[in-house]
Amino acid sequence: MSLPRKPVTGMKDILPGEMEIRNYVRGKVREVYGRYGFTEIETPVVEHIENLCSNQGGENEKLIFKILKRGEKLDLENARDSSDLADSGLRYDLTLPLSRYYAAHINELQSPFKALQMGNVFRADRPQKGRFRQFMQCDIDILGDATNLAEIELILATTSLLAEIGFDSYTVRISDRRFLKAMAAYSGFAPEDYDRVFIILDKMDKIGLDGVREELKESGFEEAVVDKYLSLFDNGSGGSDRIAGLKEILGEELPEGTAESLSGIIDCVNASKRGSFKMVFDPTLVRGMSYYTGTIFEISMDEFGSSVAGGGRYDGMVERFMGNKVPACGFSIGFERIITILLDRGFTVPEENGKEAFLIDKKIKGERLSEIMKEAEERRRSGSTVLLSRMMKNKKFQKDNLNAAGYTEIKEFFE
Amino acid sequence: MSLPRKPVTGMKDILPGEMEIRNYVRGKVREVYGRYGFTEIETPVVEHIENLCSNQGGENEKLIFKILKRGEKLDLENARDSSDLADSGLRYDLTLPLSRYYAAHINELQSPFKALQMGNVFRADRPQKGRFRQFMQCDIDILGDATNLAEIELILATTSLLAEIGFDSYTVRISDRRFLKAMAAYSGFAPEDYDRVFIILDKMDKIGLDGVREELKESGFEEAVVDKYLSLFDNGSGGSDRIAGLKEILGEELPEGTAESLSGIIDCVNASKRGSFKMVFDPTLVRGMSYYTGTIFEISMDEFGSSVAGGGRYDGMVERFMGNKVPACGFSIGFERIITILLDRGFTVPEENGKEAFLIDKKIKGERLSEIMKEAEERRRSGSTVLLSRMMKNKKFQKDNLNAAGYTEIKEFFE
Repeated sequence: MSLPRKPVTGMKDILPGEMEIRNYVRGKVREVYGRYGFTEIETPVVEHIENLCSNQGGENEKLIFKILKRGEKLDLENARDSSDLADSGLRYDLTLPLSRYYAAHINELQSPFKALQMGNVFRADRPQKGRFRQFMQCDIDILGDATNLAEIELILATTSLLAEIGFDSYTVRISDRRFLKAMAAYSGFAPEDYDRVFIILDKMDKIGLDGVREELKESGFEEAVVDKYLSLFDNGSGGSDRIAGLKEILGEELPEGTAESLSGIIDCVNASKRGSFKMVFDPTLVRGMSYYTGTIFEISMDEFGSSVAGGGRYDGMVERFMGNKVPACGFSIGFERIITILLDRGFTVPEENGKEAFLIDKKIKGERLSEIMKEAEERRRSGSTVLLSRMMKNKKFQKDNLNAAGYTEIKEFFE
Repeated sequence: MSLPRKPVTGMKDILPGEMEIRNYVRGKVREVYGRYGFTEIETPVVEHIENLCSNQGGENEKLIFKILKRGEKLDLENARDSSDLADSGLRYDLTLPLSRYYAAHINELQSPFKALQMGNVFRADRPQKGRFRQFMQCDIDILGDATNLAEIELILATTSLLAEIGFDSYTVRISDRRFLKAMAAYSGFAPEDYDRVFIILDKMDKIGLDGVREELKESGFEEAVVDKYLSLFDNGSGGSDRIAGLKEILGEELPEGTAESLSGIIDCVNASKRGSFKMVFDPTLVRGMSYYTGTIFEISMDEFGSSVAGGGRYDGMVERFMGNKVPACGFSIGFERIITILLDRGFTVPEENGKEAFLIDKKIKGERLSEIMKEAEERRRSGSTVLLSRMMKNKKFQKDNLNAAGYTEIKEFFE
């Protein structure tokens, strides 16, 4: 019986055509983020199980691929559940390993530390179209900078990258978790209800203001509180004016400097941005992960229903690894989504050099073969791509395939 | 209590300096192998447990990181051993997944298919210096070409790559599994003893001809057989002459065409090679993996004790996945060893563009900050690297660090 030839459930093999686009985008990521002084690093795909299950991953912690203990450590008889069997697992994101990495190597890193990571992450999600159990994440993070220069740099770098790979019509939505909380407090929600409120607010895109109102009331919140809360969202999204207006209303509920920091980011990005994207303050923005402590942002693109990039400030995570607080802020582009859009657009990577194919008659060997090899080697050394192939019986078929692969110049060699 | 900050046992975090070298080498790999018409592909790091345990991985099958089944499939009560608990595992090499990939996608691939793979593999080996449990492999393979053009191309591509990244004084040793078998048969060993004989022969490098003689005798092989066998190795390694000489002696034990194919490879590579490496027929070459069926080769370098690249022909592996034989041949460079040598040499990646740092006084914000950002953005768009950083109290320390990171030009901005 044959062995299984499909990849494991929910993961995929990458064919040469897609791989070329992936490499192209990865090259652009390195080039553009490099110009902003981000340095690339890597962590293992395998992470301590304690770290993966430390309540920093939200729903993702339910989707961990766990790795069996080995040798004597695997004690099947006394194991009660899977946590007794596993000592590690595959990382579900790049933010948690980065926090561990920073704590481990702080003395060997620049300060502030500007990290670029491109790596596979793993989630044992229900398989569905366009969503895979192994997928690439591409994150930039700045650790050690408490000022909003970090947010400005992250947004400028990310939007420059998008411009460089041909994306233009999109919106950068920005808010601050402290705004979210102040708005909830001002309206009269109890702090222990915030998370439930935000989960409903997060549906604004899909169900609208009235839908949110209904769900909040159905959840048992007081009508007056809900109405007061939702009146804050009446003016939709906006710029610095809108921030100033809300600040006025919220008064002391909003920590000092929150509004100014946010306005500063929007104004500075608008002044020096590349491309025609919109940058708006959107008080309905929630961002799922509970580790965010300040600014949050997201890029949404009409071409692709949901968000194509997201990030924010997470000043508390590194503390879990080293005891003291480290300001941290990151922005992650949806690498796989971008590849999907480029594939849908029929994007092709620009060829830099010529591609030639040498078709060699089956009978050729010895010195004649050496001569042909020498010719091929010379061209390769001057930068050309030369594909050598034995001539097949069905030469037309072979040539058609070579043409399709971009080998427009085909040279034939006979004895 | 803090969470663990070191990576899991035997795996490593990659710091920015090493990462830069790794990216440089990976770029060269893509560039050089690309010129030979190799196209890059990727398979998931997670592989079916049946495939990983299909007796094609030799000792590596004992070192698999197994992944726990999830949900209802994990039946702890009725599990007798680890094989009942795992449905997948981390790949231990790139050759097995490539064979699966080829069988799955043959209709979407060029023929012959020239694949380049760079990816992490995992082995739960005993941790030791310079050997990690996650490490990068870099393989090129040609599937569907039964002629020795495949071997010639693999060797020329690999040696061109080595030249390109600054390696020159090394030896490419080549032999053929069929030579190995013919020599054992000619001497009078029984076929069931071949593997034991080859394991001892493989130690020639370390214990010499006399050491091998002693071990063979200690293993209970007849003195006359051992002496006849070892007399075949008297002339050491050599070129086409040596091959012709051995062919003469071995007579009908050696399958037709074996000697000619091997000579053809050596002569053709010597005629068109780049750099001054030596290419020799070495009948003592064994190569561990049992899946090799024909030509085997290895690159040894004085600078690095053991081999720095290895490969050969494995015409039987794809058959396990699709029922019919597919000629296949591959060459794998020891990516991690090459990085180690470059790090030991103090290699630095040549900088292409200038690197500037802007140090910005803490008090600067608003329009003044926007102006500075605009200046930085303009330089970045013209290709420069510009690092923006808030000025620290200890400015000298900050500048020293920036200098060390290659930022030689530092500009300061005050209110």
